[in-house]
Amino acid sequence: MEPTTIVLFGATGDLAKRKIYPALYNLFIDGKLPKEFSLVGLGRREWTDESFQANVEKSLHQFSRREANDAGLVKEFLRAFRYSVLDIGRQEDYLKLLQLVESRENELQMQPNRLFYLSVGPEYFEPIAANIKESGLGSANGWKRLVIEKPFGHDLSSARDLNRNLSKSFEEHEVFRIDHYLGKPMVQRMESLQQANPVIQALWTNRYIANVQITANESVGVEERAGYYDHVGAIRDMFQNHMLQLLMMAAIHLPNDSTSEEVRFKKKKVMEALELVQKEDVIANVIRGQYAEGSMQGNPVVGYKSEPGIAPDSMNDTFIAAKLQIDNNNWRGVPFYIRTGKRMKDKSTRIVVEFKEPLKQASTKSEDGTEPNLLVIEIGPNEGITLQLNAKDPEHKGSFKPVHIDLQASPQNSPEAYENLIGDALNGDPTFFAHWDEVELSWQWVQPILDAFEENLVPLYPYAAGTYGPVESDALLAKDGYHWWFDAKPDPNNAIKEGDQYAYNSNY
Amino acid sequence: MEPTTIVLFGATGDLAKRKIYPALYNLFIDGKLPKEFSLVGLGRREWTDESFQANVEKSLHQFSRREANDAGLVKEFLRAFRYSVLDIGRQEDYLKLLQLVESRENELQMQPNRLFYLSVGPEYFEPIAANIKESGLGSANGWKRLVIEKPFGHDLSSARDLNRNLSKSFEEHEVFRIDHYLGKPMVQRMESLQQANPVIQALWTNRYIANVQITANESVGVEERAGYYDHVGAIRDMFQNHMLQLLMMAAIHLPNDSTSEEVRFKKKKVMEALELVQKEDVIANVIRGQYAEGSMQGNPVVGYKSEPGIAPDSMNDTFIAAKLQIDNNNWRGVPFYIRTGKRMKDKSTRIVVEFKEPLKQASTKSEDGTEPNLLVIEIGPNEGITLQLNAKDPEHKGSFKPVHIDLQASPQNSPEAYENLIGDALNGDPTFFAHWDEVELSWQWVQPILDAFEENLVPLYPYAAGTYGPVESDALLAKDGYHWWFDAKPDPNNAIKEGDQYAYNSNY
Repeated sequence: MEPTTIVLFGATGDLAKRKIYPALYNLFIDGKLPKEFSLVGLGRREWTDESFQANVEKSLHQFSRREANDAGLVKEFLRAFRYSVLDIGRQEDYLKLLQLVESRENELQMQPNRLFYLSVGPEYFEPIAANIKESGLGSANGWKRLVIEKPFGHDLSSARDLNRNLSKSFEEHEVFRIDHYLGKPMVQRMESLQQANPVIQALWTNRYIANVQITANESVGVEERAGYYDHVGAIRDMFQNHMLQLLMMAAIHLPNDSTSEEVRFKKKKVMEALELVQKEDVIANVIRGQYAEGSMQGNPVVGYKSEPGIAPDSMNDTFIAAKLQIDNNNWRGVPFYIRTGKRMKDKSTRIVVEFKEPLKQASTKSEDGTEPNLLVIEIGPNEGITLQLNAKDPEHKGSFKPVHIDLQASPQNSPEAYENLIGDALNGDPTFFAHWDEVELSWQWVQPILDAFEENLVPLYPYAAGTYGPVESDALLAKDGYHWWFDAKPDPNNAIKEGDQYAYNSNY
Repeated sequence: MEPTTIVLFGATGDLAKRKIYPALYNLFIDGKLPKEFSLVGLGRREWTDESFQANVEKSLHQFSRREANDAGLVKEFLRAFRYSVLDIGRQEDYLKLLQLVESRENELQMQPNRLFYLSVGPEYFEPIAANIKESGLGSANGWKRLVIEKPFGHDLSSARDLNRNLSKSFEEHEVFRIDHYLGKPMVQRMESLQQANPVIQALWTNRYIANVQITANESVGVEERAGYYDHVGAIRDMFQNHMLQLLMMAAIHLPNDSTSEEVRFKKKKVMEALELVQKEDVIANVIRGQYAEGSMQGNPVVGYKSEPGIAPDSMNDTFIAAKLQIDNNNWRGVPFYIRTGKRMKDKSTRIVVEFKEPLKQASTKSEDGTEPNLLVIEIGPNEGITLQLNAKDPEHKGSFKPVHIDLQASPQNSPEAYENLIGDALNGDPTFFAHWDEVELSWQWVQPILDAFEENLVPLYPYAAGTYGPVESDALLAKDGYHWWFDAKPDPNNAIKEGDQYAYNSNY
């Protein structure tokens, strides 16, 4: 691995503490950090190197998946860490930063390869990138990379603006846009599942697949992010980025040892083949919902409008379900159903591939116990890949029962998304980062939905907290003869009240 | 189930004791015998009903898979059993038998449905069938069925003679030819595995399958059957019947709830599409072997020629490996490799379906740990269906390791082949019996091989007892770029001696 300096903006922030430092520590333990490695943390707080290192160490004890109880190792790890106060808008601070980075490079006799990690609010992306360029931080005789967190824009035009501005300081191949769903171990294994198994690859087509269901259900409510979330909603917070990335990963074919260029080319092709939904047709293909009061595991919880920091008349979406169609030879006729929501009954991110049942259709036999064949990729919080097949029921001759078989259990204590992604960024491997093409095409696909929501062309359906979203989400699949897999039966005691129903529909 | 009388020829014999009585008892326990049920056992020994029942009971204690320790149940079961002395050639004995059968039918007020089970040597098939007809035993006002054990003929012409003669007394739909491999639970599940799983069915074609390997390895030597076996060999004892039946079962497609007519029609089509091997080409496609001295699990064992009852210059085959090709759209280009032998290292009957690796061929990457995808049907002594796929190796990024997943473990203590088959015969379901078409086509395919062996056009290769047969069997697959799956590495201390090699080759 090449010598690298990480310049970390937002070093005192929450993401750094919870994800970035633990990820770097575990990479270090696994021998996956460059031998010559330097990290400069930046923030507004007046920390010293020592207090910075102490804070990093504390975060390891709190958040590392592997215990940081070898004092010698921790000390060796922390030796690379330096801190500098920085006001994002002040040019002098960047010059000071440049001096520190260079002096560390000299001290360690390192090539000046610099990875700028922007773990800050999106309003700071453009000034930081500009100052990196103007200060000369980005002009050393080594490579430079920009790692950037979501959100990338608020809609299509703001995303384009942002990209245009960033591109003045960094070329596309230097930009590593993190979508941490792409770092999740099971998402990364989807690629290899096909690559290494001709049998799975053979089945990955509309010839055999009936539909694909992508779910990312959260059980939490809006939590502390109320102010931000109420202007964003599930559509921007989850759908435009994570959900469409999962769709791309599920839909691409990887016929040989694909390069990152091939993977990205195929993902782009999928997005280009995604049938556009006109503003007027959103109502037929997209269900938006907002959680009302309900109960989570028996405990009452408030509705979204009653959450602290949320406007009492908020029309924000906390749930989205959508039917998408990919118009290419491989996927024509196979609906992709996507849903994501807060305050859902179970916390689960998964992809379910439901296979066709030509035999059942041809058969006149009544119910024999078979269910469709399924390939289920559990992404979180459980990890695993299972295949549901039908086996003869030894108890009842002539009848069957579905069996679930583990294709690929996840190893205990597998690397976290941020480890995979930071490791890839250090190696310069962009495979599991979002290319601008993907981001732009995603916003382009989502834009008519944003417009339809804005203009209230689509009902906002309430759903009781602790359910699987509005019943209209089930109806979306039922129209096509399908249902969401693995939802528990609805609890009649946890449903929408008459008043709630009316209040929302009147907006339509 | 319809009232049935089983008329059992060979009631004092070994097969009856080991297989038939235990099977009937377990069917009885499972409620799968007709309510009105009578069995008349026949033999040369002067047994009374009581001594017959006592012998049957003894066989249950010795051989039943479920313990026969409920005296009341056993007594109830045995109530149906009567015995009559019969000399197969004496017509009077059949009249006496008819009287007994009729008196039992009257006593039990049963319809005269009669199942004649010939658990006797093949030389008795024709006289028994003729006497059944002449005595009037086969002319009652109910159905009649003939259950017949192997061997069905010694070659093509004797099989045709036998069938012609049997058909004077029984029509084809009345003949149930037992091939007990068709009764094995895993063979019976192959059908349902496809029927119930579109995913498996989709893969069942030359588009995705590279080759199919059917193995039936025995670890025993010739045992007590020397006199019979030395005139029969592996080709007649195993290959013509069991192995070709397994081939048919593996090769048929079952697109919907197939009737027994459809299954048999498809099996016949497979046999018709099997490329015929000319006598002169046998050498290129068939390996014959005979075990020489060697060792089984460390203990020395004698060679075939030194077995008691075997001619010291015997040219009999105790091992056959063959490459077969099915010339139809589904299987063209997919070799079926079949082997069976005695004194093999491991006892195992299995079918391995090896899938193509288009990805590997396209890849320039060196060894990444992947192996071909396999579907493995373990028929005996272990039972189960597993799929071998490749999973990412969490220890080594970018590399894979094969994982075996259980598609369908067999339930503990599953029904034995004879239970399935006798149950089917009682129900009149011929699906898992060998139709005359299949038997005739099998002999027809095997005949040039018999001729080539007879004329010594094919070398007889020696192999050390306790190995996987002659190395030429491995070479048969290696020519095509494949190898037998799941063979252990050869033991250099257990190989053919120079002298053995020469002695055999000189015959060629």
